[in-house]
Formats: sequence, structure tokens, C-alpha cells
Amino acid sequence: MERWQQELVREGERADSLDRKGYQIIQSPSRFCFGMDAVLLAAFANNKEGDRVLDLGTGTGVIPILMEARYGGAEYKALEIQADSCDMARRSARLNGLEDRIEIVEGDLTRAHEIFGPASFDVVTCNPPYMTNKHGLTNPSGPMAIARHELLCSLEDVVRETARLLRPGGHSYFVHRPFRLVEIMTRMHDYGLEPKRMRLVYPYADREPNMVLLEGVRGGRSWLKTEPPLVIYRGQGIYTDEVKKLYFDGDTEE
Amino acid sequence: MERWQQELVREGERADSLDRKGYQIIQSPSRFCFGMDAVLLAAFANNKEGDRVLDLGTGTGVIPILMEARYGGAEYKALEIQADSCDMARRSARLNGLEDRIEIVEGDLTRAHEIFGPASFDVVTCNPPYMTNKHGLTNPSGPMAIARHELLCSLEDVVRETARLLRPGGHSYFVHRPFRLVEIMTRMHDYGLEPKRMRLVYPYADREPNMVLLEGVRGGRSWLKTEPPLVIYRGQGIYTDEVKKLYFDGDTEE
Repeated sequence: MERWQQELVREGERADSLDRKGYQIIQSPSRFCFGMDAVLLAAFANNKEGDRVLDLGTGTGVIPILMEARYGGAEYKALEIQADSCDMARRSARLNGLEDRIEIVEGDLTRAHEIFGPASFDVVTCNPPYMTNKHGLTNPSGPMAIARHELLCSLEDVVRETARLLRPGGHSYFVHRPFRLVEIMTRMHDYGLEPKRMRLVYPYADREPNMVLLEGVRGGRSWLKTEPPLVIYRGQGIYTDEVKKLYFDGDTEE
Repeated sequence: MERWQQELVREGERADSLDRKGYQIIQSPSRFCFGMDAVLLAAFANNKEGDRVLDLGTGTGVIPILMEARYGGAEYKALEIQADSCDMARRSARLNGLEDRIEIVEGDLTRAHEIFGPASFDVVTCNPPYMTNKHGLTNPSGPMAIARHELLCSLEDVVRETARLLRPGGHSYFVHRPFRLVEIMTRMHDYGLEPKRMRLVYPYADREPNMVLLEGVRGGRSWLKTEPPLVIYRGQGIYTDEVKKLYFDGDTEE
């Protein structure tokens, strides 16, 4: 890492490899570190050259950086309500030389369509907070709580704003917990963001899934494609070949 | 098979083993033969002793017969609109000595709650027609077409009538195609029949699922349990151990 890059990383932070195109992300373990959800969402999502892509509630900006690494050639914007996270995300964009391609906007997801204007994106991604309740929260105003619990935005906010932000025919990509699948599907359907593709993520081949990946199309007709199971581990701590490929590919060593 | 049992089987029909408690089912290959869907639905479903159980669109009556074999002790009713199918189903009940436990009622599913009365069952099962369109139908009024296509009832009819027929807290069990999952979930949710448990059926571990099993609870709160994948084959024509157990168990030889 060059001197100017090192200077982008502050006290208590670290720069972690993203295992793609040499990209790194600035994270603070006391705030929030990205998980497998982000990696799987970026791999499940897609964008074409020239697409206008928005990530809602971007946190450290890991999704747009991973999307750029995978699909390139697009104009990425990312919305985040926490000023400190915006600052980190902007520094991560600079660290990877992406400051002209990824714009981090500080603002409130619940009124995102007012910030960016309706029907202004081809693709919207979101890795939202999964939990509705405040159970077990030691610091309910901290960044970890905001990332994991619906304190500043609800699932309905995410779906409604996504539907408004997408052009007709535009695509959304969400990751969430399967226990809320009915709620996600009914909300999406009701807001005209039809679920078109689903993949369930199973930690082991014989276990219950712990994540669901969902693609929606604004104004799409009702017809869902369900993909083969995505299994994470084939044994204790050993990734399946598919997951290895999702994490590491191209120019990066395993 | 005894003489009186043989006399229950008509020309063009045959009595097939159900591999459970020695039960058999009368089928006519030119009309409709039960498939794996019925076996998986009966295994996914459940009823307790004393439950009032209804099967909608029962056809040959395979679901209540399999349910009785598995769970016993309940009062089974089954609704079927085709007179010939009712006749076969009644003869199958007799063949297995179940004529006092399984009542076959001839009638129209779309007004089932008028036939049986609202909130009159603890459990409702249904293996409905999967296809909305009439594409590829050579005989659109034949029993095969009626079993497979939504000619005499729609998914909405099935969900609406089930919600009306169940007591509050009563359970529904459906099998369907995954491509209609969004429609099933939104209809169920909207009629107050909350999807609570789901299992996807994958023909092979690395293929797309071709069936979905769904349990609903009338008036249940929104929280879905998704079960581990149900994989049918582990190799060409070789059932997985789980499927073998679903088909053959207890007193029957494999």
C-alpha cells in the first residue's frame, strides 16, 4: 500500500482486502465489518455498462466497490445516513481510485426518491437491517445496531423507495433473512416490484437456509425463477467450490 | 387381494400399492395417476388424533388415504367435482376398509365453505392444478386437464376457500410449483392464511427446485421457517435416503 493510501486509514480502522482487482475496504471492527451477505449480494446482482446503479444504506460502501470490481463500467451512487460511515466509504472509494465512479451521498433512505428523483436508476441494491425488534441491543444508537436492526428504516421503506427509484423494467437486488420472506415478497409485489429470481443460501446442504437473495423487476409479471441451493460449507470451515469462486477470482490468489 | 376387493376395480383401472399399511389406490392411467407431489404433501402435512381434516380437489383420494396411513385417528373429508373420480375415491376407501373414516363429497371447490360451513376444519390439504394457461391441452374437458390446469378452480379459489374453511389457528398444507410462489404467498397472506413453513424440493442437489411445500396457519403472525432442501435423486434414478423413507416405511417392504 502506498503512503497516500495508508494516510486514508485512520486510528482504529484497517484496510481489508476484497480479493478482487486488488481492491481494499476501510473498516472499523468496533463499528461494522462486512459479512458474507455483501459478497453474495454483489455476486447475485448484476449491472450492464452505462447502468445507473444505487446502493441503499451502503455503510462502508462495500457493495458498490464489489459491484464495480465485478461488472465495471457503471455510474454508482450510494446512500448512507451515518456521517462517519459516509466518510469511511468515501475514503475507501479513493483508496481504490474509484472516487470518480462511486459517489457517496449522505441522506435518509426513507426519502431516497426525493434525494435522487423518481425512476432515476436502472439497478438498486440493498443489504438492509434484518431485525425488527430491539432485542439484545446494548447500544441502540450505535452503528452496529443501525446496520442490523430496523431503527432508522424498515423493510417497507426499503421496498417502497426502491420501487420509486427504479425506472420501469429496472432491477432490484436484496439480501435478507428467510424468516421474513413472506413479508418481503408481499411488500415487493404490492409496490409493483415483482420478485423474479430467488436463491436460498444454506450454510450446509442439510440445514435450514440463513439467507435469501431476491431479484425484483419494477412492473415485471408474476413468474419466479428459483435457483439451485447455494451451499456455503461442504465441511467444518471448508467452503464449497462455488463459494470459493464467488470470493476469489481472476487476478487474486486464494 | 380378496374377491370383494377385486370387484371394486373396474375395467381399465388398476389397484396400485401405496407402500403404507398395505393400502392400495384405484387408478386409471387414462385419467390421472398420483405423482410424487401427493406423497411429499402427505409427508409434509400433519394431523393430530381427533382433527377434522379436509382435502380439496382430492381426485382419486390419494391424499386422505396417505394421511390416514401416516397420522390415523382423524375424521377425513375430501371434496371432488368429478363424479367419476368421486366414485373411484369411494371405492379406494372401501378397498382399504376406510369407508367410515374418509368421506368423499362431490362438489365445487370454489364454494367449498358453503358446502362444509366456515371454520369447520383443523387441517386443509390441497394439491391443486399448477398451470394457469390452457397451452398444450388436447382435451380441455378431460380429467387429466382438470387435474393439471386451472380450468375449474384457480389458486385464489383454493386459498380463499381454505382460509374460510379453517378454524382460527388451523393449518393448511399445499404443494405447488415454485414459479408461482410469490402469487401463493401474497394470496395466503392477504386472506389471513399466513405461510409459516416452506420446503423446496430439488430434483438434484445442484438443480432448480420443481416443487414447493407450504404450511399456512389461519391468523398466524408473519414468521416463515424454511426447511433444509428436500433432494429427490442422488444419482440417475436413485432416490436419496430421505425420499426412500418418505415412500417406504414401517411394515412395508422396499
